[in-house]
Amino acid sequence: MCHGRKMKAGLAFMTCTFQSGNLNPCHCNFLFPSPNPPLSLPTTLRSITSFGNPPALRTTSTYYNCNTNHLKQIHAGFATMASAYNPEQARVPAALPLATPPVTKFKIALCQLLVTADKERNIAHARKAIEEAAGKGAQLVLLPEIWNSPYSNDSFPVYAEDIDAGGDASPSTAMLSEVARTLKITLVGGSIPERCGDKLYNTCCVFGADGKLKAKHRKIHLFDIDIPGKITFIESKTLTAGETPTVVDTDVGRIAIGICYDIRFQELAMLYAARGANMICYPGAFNMTTGPLHWELLQRARAVDNQIYVATCSPARDASAGYVAWGHSTLVGPFGEVLATTEHDEAIVVAEIDYSAIELRRTNLPLEKQKRGDLYQLVDVQRLNSQSTKEVSSCHGFVCPNFKVQEDEPCLESRNISCRPSTVYPTLSRWGPANPREGSDTRGRATAATQP
Amino acid sequence: MCHGRKMKAGLAFMTCTFQSGNLNPCHCNFLFPSPNPPLSLPTTLRSITSFGNPPALRTTSTYYNCNTNHLKQIHAGFATMASAYNPEQARVPAALPLATPPVTKFKIALCQLLVTADKERNIAHARKAIEEAAGKGAQLVLLPEIWNSPYSNDSFPVYAEDIDAGGDASPSTAMLSEVARTLKITLVGGSIPERCGDKLYNTCCVFGADGKLKAKHRKIHLFDIDIPGKITFIESKTLTAGETPTVVDTDVGRIAIGICYDIRFQELAMLYAARGANMICYPGAFNMTTGPLHWELLQRARAVDNQIYVATCSPARDASAGYVAWGHSTLVGPFGEVLATTEHDEAIVVAEIDYSAIELRRTNLPLEKQKRGDLYQLVDVQRLNSQSTKEVSSCHGFVCPNFKVQEDEPCLESRNISCRPSTVYPTLSRWGPANPREGSDTRGRATAATQP
Repeated sequence: MCHGRKMKAGLAFMTCTFQSGNLNPCHCNFLFPSPNPPLSLPTTLRSITSFGNPPALRTTSTYYNCNTNHLKQIHAGFATMASAYNPEQARVPAALPLATPPVTKFKIALCQLLVTADKERNIAHARKAIEEAAGKGAQLVLLPEIWNSPYSNDSFPVYAEDIDAGGDASPSTAMLSEVARTLKITLVGGSIPERCGDKLYNTCCVFGADGKLKAKHRKIHLFDIDIPGKITFIESKTLTAGETPTVVDTDVGRIAIGICYDIRFQELAMLYAARGANMICYPGAFNMTTGPLHWELLQRARAVDNQIYVATCSPARDASAGYVAWGHSTLVGPFGEVLATTEHDEAIVVAEIDYSAIELRRTNLPLEKQKRGDLYQLVDVQRLNSQSTKEVSSCHGFVCPNFKVQEDEPCLESRNISCRPSTVYPTLSRWGPANPREGSDTRGRATAATQP
Repeated sequence: MCHGRKMKAGLAFMTCTFQSGNLNPCHCNFLFPSPNPPLSLPTTLRSITSFGNPPALRTTSTYYNCNTNHLKQIHAGFATMASAYNPEQARVPAALPLATPPVTKFKIALCQLLVTADKERNIAHARKAIEEAAGKGAQLVLLPEIWNSPYSNDSFPVYAEDIDAGGDASPSTAMLSEVARTLKITLVGGSIPERCGDKLYNTCCVFGADGKLKAKHRKIHLFDIDIPGKITFIESKTLTAGETPTVVDTDVGRIAIGICYDIRFQELAMLYAARGANMICYPGAFNMTTGPLHWELLQRARAVDNQIYVATCSPARDASAGYVAWGHSTLVGPFGEVLATTEHDEAIVVAEIDYSAIELRRTNLPLEKQKRGDLYQLVDVQRLNSQSTKEVSSCHGFVCPNFKVQEDEPCLESRNISCRPSTVYPTLSRWGPANPREGSDTRGRATAATQP
């Protein structure tokens, strides 16, 4: 465990990530109100910082502590990069370390289901597929986008369920909760149309092996496209977009969620990787135009660029449906390699995930350490805004006498600790589920939030 | 031409992009020092702004002017998105409009050359290929990475040339300059090892049809990878990384440059698209491991995610070389579609580019308008820092009585104008060529800089 004892107070804003182990050195980010490095920084630290950013983003990151050897190693290995190119500044706030999952190897199942207009049948059919997947050893099961309803703006209001109310108001998620608990699996429940007040969402629920709703992702980027003569669909006619990215710690690792069109936005996947995700699951129903063009390409791109696993699950193709899905549910590894896939018919794709491949590929191609934070920076707006409000005077040997110490949810091996004056951010919002009831089971009972 | 007459002063920082034509509405970015919208903003403007960002990034973008119909159209078409999701904030500074190129359709040639240890032969061979390409009608010719030298850390110092000195000190670029002028073509001259003082770079020179050096890109991300038993290469043993992205306006459109490993960093391509580039050219020599895995994948990903053209040019494969190149020089369209490619032997790939496809695809999938600036923002650090120092009291009918008006280089149809108090940025650096001699021909004579 690293300690920040050498650090002196007197900075306007400071975020440190503490990490045990040797692979990821401790580092700190600073936001300075002035263009000059604070004189209170020890010389060894000042020598590897730079201050070329504009005041609006006067963030600088530096490695400090833990002992002389550690500092020497940093200087030797990354001196040029850390000082001149500021790779850790390429994400604001600095990227969290890759989550250490409870299991390294496990089986995932992608249930490519044929969806009909009969909701009861769809629910029973999905249950049967999940049971079959679990019977094949899957500890994580993924369902398709909109698996309980035809995919159409006409159907969404008719098939929508009140997930927060749960029970009879949401028979689809009630089934998911029950089957996850019974089979003791993690379930990324594809998506269903959700009704919340007078709004409709395209929503993915993640259930833990205890049957509790661990996260709820509402599709962030609505599918509004127009390729004349090929495919025109305007989801925003009926749906409202979600307000937050979703990352959740589960029994099978830190899983990030996107739904279909969300996969087109590379920024979201970059943000998820910087939150330490092991895998992104995209339930998605690409069509007969965009499917052959882009479905596999986008999955592989997100995986190789972010060096994480990507899993997708589509409905099976029904050529007679109003919206004809491409199918081809796929698992992609952190080198962009297709590990398992299928054609367009109903199928349960079972494949093994080995998270150690992520570290291997990041060692082969250390992209994160090679980024140019001096040239580009991806800002995770909600995480930058995020604050919990625990006020203490020290933590982990880190003393901030003049500041409130605000401590985020501890997650696995890492702790994310911020020292800042209380006046810097007049309005604070915690990053995590946008809906306060998302940390609840299907009957609205509160459960522990596990957002990293 | 749009005018900002309605805009009142009183803001801390304001950047406006003025654009003629109807497709790209005028827009302004504001950086506010306070959490509240300035009362001086007209109601119509305040209604489509939001102020949810942290002060460190209190940027908000809004559309304003030019007449009531324009405002109505914006309100009707993008009201929800512009107000709630701030797509224009997904790039900081706001993305420049796509450049309007001097020609819409033209032929490009990718010269996949066999490179030997004989530098004179390499230069003569490249000249012959360029002449053949021009003979086939190519107005833009692209050469491979390191085409005058074997690709090895041992060779780089030996084959390196002093490009800034030009003439006999750089026979490779002297040839490029002369052949570009003679054939009246734009030449993206692959890359050669460059010596500058005691440093070596992997450098791409872009020559205009007048033979003048229009831009010089030094590889930003050095190729340091280690896949044991497959490929290990540490470019940083001998080379220094470049300090700036490169975008240049040419007779065949606004071209951005990356070299080989640069293509792995999606942020660079995103930044280039936000600078209005029509195309990214990547001279690159992937190898027999990463080539089949990632070469085409990365090209198609950059193209489809940013909806621009991507052109690559590799050396031909020499199985007896120390570093065996993958080949497969390729042109990819803005839908991620491979338009032309080749195998690993020597080849001149000639293909037509039609820039109107970019607008078509951006109309089909309006990704730029669908981004979530409320959730993620990519910062172009150098462009954010960029300032020229022209001080006037008004421009384009835009009056800033309390501020210096700082006017960037005009580029094509657009002007980028900033009003800001002189105290905001104590240190200013102009974005564009990092090397002051980059705006020069091969003998160091100054030429007009054309960085957008």
